[in-house]
Amino acid sequence: MTANARRHELDPQVRIEQDLIGPKEVPADAYFGVQTVRAIENFSISGVPINHYPHLIRALAMVKMACARANFDVGKLSPEILAGIEKACEDLIEGKLHEHFVLDVLQGGAGTSTNMNANEVIANRALEHMGHTKGEYRFCDPHDHVNKSQSTNDVYPSALHLALLLGNTDLMGEFRLLINSFRAKADEFSDIVKMGRTQLQDAVPMTLGQEFLGWANSLEDELDALQFVEQVLYEVNLGGTAIGTGLNAPRGYAAKCVEHLAVISKKPIHLARNLVEATQDTQAFVLYSATLKSLAIKLSKICNDLRLLSSGPRTGINEINLPALQPGSTIMPGKVNPVMPEVVNMVCFRVIGNDLTVTMGAEAGQLQLNVMEPVIAACLLESQTLFMNAARSLRTFCIDGITANRDVCQRYIEQSVGVVTALNPLLGYEKATVLAAEAMRTGKGIVQLVREQQLLTEEQIQHVLDPSAMTGRSSHRE
Amino acid sequence: MTANARRHELDPQVRIEQDLIGPKEVPADAYFGVQTVRAIENFSISGVPINHYPHLIRALAMVKMACARANFDVGKLSPEILAGIEKACEDLIEGKLHEHFVLDVLQGGAGTSTNMNANEVIANRALEHMGHTKGEYRFCDPHDHVNKSQSTNDVYPSALHLALLLGNTDLMGEFRLLINSFRAKADEFSDIVKMGRTQLQDAVPMTLGQEFLGWANSLEDELDALQFVEQVLYEVNLGGTAIGTGLNAPRGYAAKCVEHLAVISKKPIHLARNLVEATQDTQAFVLYSATLKSLAIKLSKICNDLRLLSSGPRTGINEINLPALQPGSTIMPGKVNPVMPEVVNMVCFRVIGNDLTVTMGAEAGQLQLNVMEPVIAACLLESQTLFMNAARSLRTFCIDGITANRDVCQRYIEQSVGVVTALNPLLGYEKATVLAAEAMRTGKGIVQLVREQQLLTEEQIQHVLDPSAMTGRSSHRE
Amino acid sequence: MTANARRHELDPQVRIEQDLIGPKEVPADAYFGVQTVRAIENFSISGVPINHYPHLIRALAMVKMACARANFDVGKLSPEILAGIEKACEDLIEGKLHEHFVLDVLQGGAGTSTNMNANEVIANRALEHMGHTKGEYRFCDPHDHVNKSQSTNDVYPSALHLALLLGNTDLMGEFRLLINSFRAKADEFSDIVKMGRTQLQDAVPMTLGQEFLGWANSLEDELDALQFVEQVLYEVNLGGTAIGTGLNAPRGYAAKCVEHLAVISKKPIHLARNLVEATQDTQAFVLYSATLKSLAIKLSKICNDLRLLSSGPRTGINEINLPALQPGSTIMPGKVNPVMPEVVNMVCFRVIGNDLTVTMGAEAGQLQLNVMEPVIAACLLESQTLFMNAARSLRTFCIDGITANRDVCQRYIEQSVGVVTALNPLLGYEKATVLAAEAMRTGKGIVQLVREQQLLTEEQIQHVLDPSAMTGRSSHRE
Amino acid sequence: MTANARRHELDPQVRIEQDLIGPKEVPADAYFGVQTVRAIENFSISGVPINHYPHLIRALAMVKMACARANFDVGKLSPEILAGIEKACEDLIEGKLHEHFVLDVLQGGAGTSTNMNANEVIANRALEHMGHTKGEYRFCDPHDHVNKSQSTNDVYPSALHLALLLGNTDLMGEFRLLINSFRAKADEFSDIVKMGRTQLQDAVPMTLGQEFLGWANSLEDELDALQFVEQVLYEVNLGGTAIGTGLNAPRGYAAKCVEHLAVISKKPIHLARNLVEATQDTQAFVLYSATLKSLAIKLSKICNDLRLLSSGPRTGINEINLPALQPGSTIMPGKVNPVMPEVVNMVCFRVIGNDLTVTMGAEAGQLQLNVMEPVIAACLLESQTLFMNAARSLRTFCIDGITANRDVCQRYIEQSVGVVTALNPLLGYEKATVLAAEAMRTGKGIVQLVREQQLLTEEQIQHVLDPSAMTGRSSHRE
Repeated sequence: MTANARRHELDPQVRIEQDLIGPKEVPADAYFGVQTVRAIENFSISGVPINHYPHLIRALAMVKMACARANFDVGKLSPEILAGIEKACEDLIEGKLHEHFVLDVLQGGAGTSTNMNANEVIANRALEHMGHTKGEYRFCDPHDHVNKSQSTNDVYPSALHLALLLGNTDLMGEFRLLINSFRAKADEFSDIVKMGRTQLQDAVPMTLGQEFLGWANSLEDELDALQFVEQVLYEVNLGGTAIGTGLNAPRGYAAKCVEHLAVISKKPIHLARNLVEATQDTQAFVLYSATLKSLAIKLSKICNDLRLLSSGPRTGINEINLPALQPGSTIMPGKVNPVMPEVVNMVCFRVIGNDLTVTMGAEAGQLQLNVMEPVIAACLLESQTLFMNAARSLRTFCIDGITANRDVCQRYIEQSVGVVTALNPLLGYEKATVLAAEAMRTGKGIVQLVREQQLLTEEQIQHVLDPSAMTGRSSHRE
Repeated sequence: MTANARRHELDPQVRIEQDLIGPKEVPADAYFGVQTVRAIENFSISGVPINHYPHLIRALAMVKMACARANFDVGKLSPEILAGIEKACEDLIEGKLHEHFVLDVLQGGAGTSTNMNANEVIANRALEHMGHTKGEYRFCDPHDHVNKSQSTNDVYPSALHLALLLGNTDLMGEFRLLINSFRAKADEFSDIVKMGRTQLQDAVPMTLGQEFLGWANSLEDELDALQFVEQVLYEVNLGGTAIGTGLNAPRGYAAKCVEHLAVISKKPIHLARNLVEATQDTQAFVLYSATLKSLAIKLSKICNDLRLLSSGPRTGINEINLPALQPGSTIMPGKVNPVMPEVVNMVCFRVIGNDLTVTMGAEAGQLQLNVMEPVIAACLLESQTLFMNAARSLRTFCIDGITANRDVCQRYIEQSVGVVTALNPLLGYEKATVLAAEAMRTGKGIVQLVREQQLLTEEQIQHVLDPSAMTGRSSHRE
Repeated sequence: MTANARRHELDPQVRIEQDLIGPKEVPADAYFGVQTVRAIENFSISGVPINHYPHLIRALAMVKMACARANFDVGKLSPEILAGIEKACEDLIEGKLHEHFVLDVLQGGAGTSTNMNANEVIANRALEHMGHTKGEYRFCDPHDHVNKSQSTNDVYPSALHLALLLGNTDLMGEFRLLINSFRAKADEFSDIVKMGRTQLQDAVPMTLGQEFLGWANSLEDELDALQFVEQVLYEVNLGGTAIGTGLNAPRGYAAKCVEHLAVISKKPIHLARNLVEATQDTQAFVLYSATLKSLAIKLSKICNDLRLLSSGPRTGINEINLPALQPGSTIMPGKVNPVMPEVVNMVCFRVIGNDLTVTMGAEAGQLQLNVMEPVIAACLLESQTLFMNAARSLRTFCIDGITANRDVCQRYIEQSVGVVTALNPLLGYEKATVLAAEAMRTGKGIVQLVREQQLLTEEQIQHVLDPSAMTGRSSHRE
Repeated sequence: MTANARRHELDPQVRIEQDLIGPKEVPADAYFGVQTVRAIENFSISGVPINHYPHLIRALAMVKMACARANFDVGKLSPEILAGIEKACEDLIEGKLHEHFVLDVLQGGAGTSTNMNANEVIANRALEHMGHTKGEYRFCDPHDHVNKSQSTNDVYPSALHLALLLGNTDLMGEFRLLINSFRAKADEFSDIVKMGRTQLQDAVPMTLGQEFLGWANSLEDELDALQFVEQVLYEVNLGGTAIGTGLNAPRGYAAKCVEHLAVISKKPIHLARNLVEATQDTQAFVLYSATLKSLAIKLSKICNDLRLLSSGPRTGINEINLPALQPGSTIMPGKVNPVMPEVVNMVCFRVIGNDLTVTMGAEAGQLQLNVMEPVIAACLLESQTLFMNAARSLRTFCIDGITANRDVCQRYIEQSVGVVTALNPLLGYEKATVLAAEAMRTGKGIVQLVREQQLLTEEQIQHVLDPSAMTGRSSHRE
């Protein structure tokens, strides 16, 4: 230490720190320390730093704060050090010092480097709050104080759970706004009768409002799933330390830890039933990823529908118009493309791809730990971010500005033979089939044929074949 | 019809039926009719018939019975026809006549052919129960009676939901037995102390019992997820008919329908909130598939672990022995392989592949319907079946016969330096690191070094460094 | 043995065989032996027997025949035994005795059971050809003669390579017929001008023939890729035995082996460069699977296009008509659905799912062997079979019967403003954009506006704005 | 325009440009123009700008240069404008002005915005080279000059092909270095005899050098595949314009275009056979992605092997040591983890996930165009980058520093019964099996038993049972 201290004097730009591997220069103004420096050097992989996802840094700080309080509760930490650590964690929770978290999101070591990055930044920041200077770890040590009673193997996955919860809240907020936009359009278009389509073939009438309400409800189902799946994220393995046996965690510490974390995070965090199991398990990530994938499938289907219904304008379905955002072609003048649904489709494909990466990462867990958690985290945090941006963009640049082509919808109703379906109960399926075939062959409308052949009275026609009547009310629970 | 009738007389082996496409010969003893014959001809794709999954046939029959009762309740079906249909459905539920469901599981038409297969078999069987002969549809018609107030688009997905629920019950039963086997071994091995491993590197001590209990608990978490996800399968769109607007479904019919289905199936079936949405939606399949995938990931990880721990016998980890089931090699005498975990790994990969097929099928839904439901169904029913067989085989051929190599586990504990972790609270992380390095360099054990350097008293050593003490009890919630 | 022999006498229905695990009854008329019996008992997983894929049985027989000849060449097999084995293999190649290959395609042991099934059937059949009875292995032993100089680890993957090659030839044949059908339609529709669509928006004119030719060429590109990828399948690791070091394979054996196999199979089989590498490698399966996936993506896109262009008839694009194969709905009379493209889409999704299973299986290889080859084989053989059936069905039930709606295509051309693109070189992009906007606003056609505003002479209009001229000839290399 | 001009005077910081949507402010010093500004506003999705992949910008510039030269050749561009465009493109090729390409990689519009970004930057830079100022498009217009005879639909995919080719060259260079490192270790370890393992069970002897050579050869096979797949990337659809019909592309232009591009890029670029087909096709991306996936599978397997062989040090296989890069645990002192293989595993999972995104994007193509190309591009360019970093890191931080534990390898050889395999040819499989069982039961070595039972002479033992002899030379083609 003396030698290091001396060298430190000689070069005011760096300080020297030491670990298992040996001594190492650290930038003098860096809050991180030797192990973060090593990890920065070791991992130049994706170019995406962990502070690209601020919720991850905040979640780490919340976990560290909870651990410090629990250590204090069980008599393992002095009030001075606790205060220093708490203030440092508050800084991070408020978004300060995130620039000291520049490690690559893709890193070996099952998150050890990220945990040490947090330990070192918090220790050095705590030292300052305590009136010391960076590197004076005898007053507050990254391992022995900040990481006390902890292992990366309980801290890191717990922080990931929390980071995903914080992101999920934001994500659901954005999607609720998007759903509201779909609902507003459902109201606006509630009286526009149009033909429904199954298998891309003319089916039976519905309203355009029903179409938009269907999308809204459909996304609400996904939010329900996202809300529910939070349950698996509430469960953490804090106190399990290295492999879940709780080695080095004092009696009572684990329970205190999760209590504090629940208070700090305002999320109903609780302890896993079996910490050995919880330490090696990635089910929570798998199920959360799967739920994001489910949302991706749904959102992609909706964007496909939007592109179908706005296809044309002259040679497609053309029932709705999406807002024109930019010229659509460098060669075809006047062309406007559905760029917003398109980019959302891409986001959905990306999220589905990310789910596969999560799947492979989760399957690769071995024995007491899943070492692939960093790539799982990178994928899930990216998917959340992409979805938030996609939902916001789709809402403001597309859904809110959609207009309907009422005349086109009306013309389809008049042309289609699909209304013949309503005659089944009166004529039977076989006779209705003959009638439909005749309409297709002659080009005549079903109502016209019914009148010509005097199959129904005018009153029956009004009652049974009125398209708007045919759209039913059964779409809402009776 | 007269012509057909005549032809029928001429050839006693066939009867003639007619549909939109024209007349068609049907084998005289077939319970199915013209539309099933066409579909059998059209779809020679996978070679797997729909009756490969008896729960699907049973579920279709339950749905048809519920619909018939609801039609009767609202005054649309005579008591005679209801009785006929009910008896026919009972036959199918009891497993009879399944040989008349030979359609390919991969079929176009969004399940229309499967629905018609059921309509035709039930109609013809009902005719017999009513004292008529096959084909006398004026007494009980596949469309106008059996399919009354229905569309494939509400009947087929509802039946799939139910079939998956029936299968899920069986599946969970098999896995509960497997979990019991893991638990029994956890008890058997509860006093065998061994080294835990993280990142395949020596970590800290645990018991072999904890390892097996971890697997048991881990699978229990999956069962919890499978139990919960049933919620999305309980929801059906019966009464929505073609596109969810309920066209041709009498007032009150839908509610009656689900009431009857809940009674018949003994599952808490209920109506979807928005039938338009529910008719086009595949979220239930997506989430159920994702939950099967989660189970696959977990089970694959467990099998990987089993293969790791039984690796060797001389050049691997060799902590446990799997039962020898068959000679392992055609060239290496005496070799015995972990064939059962291997085949379960394969099943898991297949289930994960099936989930991707489900994903793509679900994403391909368009507008008012998802036409890809048959491939979704084929994948999910296959995954259920594979998993049931895998769980049973793994339990009976492998887990129940596992033995432990107690001496190997003990030797690892003695050799490893991982116990140094327990010294952190006493010596600090940095000093413990120095000690670990010395042990690695010299080949000495940690306890030996502690004694040599008089770092701890004997009492402390007993208290802190006793491996079995280090395995903690924190694996169970305190 | 005496005891077994006695038991054998007591029960004429079985014979007793013995292996590492112990004695075991074998059905007296079974060509397979004790190890196959064990494997049948051990693996009740998928219900799909290996003889579901006859090419696999044939390929195994070809490999065994080649190995026997090579053993004879290097002086390790008598002419009598060689003759017996050759005749037995010929039987299998001709499709005989396949009913004795009923093992589950999903099996642990990296194919050992399948290899032993072949060894046992060939040995017993050879015994008969040699004038002995089944089970008299001292005259021709499954291990010591049929499997001589071999290991499952070289025989099994080599046989898989060959089985896939045999299947690939069939597959390509079916797709060539399908391509011919697309080409015939391209000729038939070569003079029908229609609007092209990009991003589902009206683009510029093309012919319907160009659309069909595009699909044909597109599939030809896939056949090119399937042809090329055969290269990786030609390479085998015969002679590498257990781990590629060639232990127990006599000098010169490996080279003879592949020479014989090339002659027998009529495929340019050759030896891998490094047998240790080749024995653990699954790249050939991965690349072949990926090429099948590429075909799936292409075929799915084509089917999506077919469904789009035939959408309607009244509320969709309706440029083409697919043949009506069966009634499309149980509720909507007269509805006809694109069932054949739909089921082909499903096949494509299944193939893509299978590729993921192959991916996971391949990634799971460890050290000197990939034990997941059976699931890889099951997926690839299934994908080949599905594709063959899909190609045949799509061709005969759909493509060959497609008709065009010439008037619809013509009407789209007249309505669309997309022809404005042709004015860029004359008016500049900006002015053309103004013109397009005016056409959209007023509902007028571009030609009409050009005339009204006297932007071009009539001659120019004929030259530049004639839609059929606009379809170019640049689709073929100039 | 006058109003805009006035506004421009009022605010010297911006200039006003106009498009189909209306007038828009552009930063005065921006080389891009109005359409890029709109696209920047529209797409805030991933946060990754297109200039994150410099090869993409360079490739776009090469394509634009080739197009300009072809336009000049066919008399459609003046020498002045050609010179301006050429110089601007040279700037981009040299890496200048890339900061003006800040569009999100995820964007709707099938690359139109990226193409316009290039058109605008090149036009404005050309204007400066021509002595004009930015925005004076009458002298050099983004559409009418830079994009002349072009559409996004031919320019963008062609540029992607080229960008991937440039990246592939870099990628292969990095992997060749990695392969060299594996080969160097293969030489270094060529005399270390060890036990091979199949199914994680003791198999037969090999050398550690053979293990490393296997990995080297295995990666070489992947490079062969990457080299070959370039063929599909050489093919471009330049001159096809909007949908491949070549509308607005002068006669002879396409051929000139690819000639110039081949010269500029030094890659054997050539024209696709059918430009209509080529414009809608994404096979090249699919196959290239699949080949990257194949590499991912292989590299992941190798990293899994590295982690297995270095597992321990005391409770694992421990045949090799990976360099210690950083402390491995925040709780377990002295623990060192295989962080570099771990992070490479993660990269592989990510690449496999990206392949799925590419798959879904490719399958989503419709009719004359695949609008999902931007997400396909983003995934492929990311995968290339990740792989380059992974290969470099794995080589320098891991492979080059691997050491072998010769004594451990030797001990395994002595302990294992796997050498019994070599006795098959002498004793027969059945007798060898009995011997193996005895060794397992008694704990004795095979050689010891052979001697005790006098099964072989000492000479035979030396010849047949010498482990180093057993490693064969058959790993290299004889």
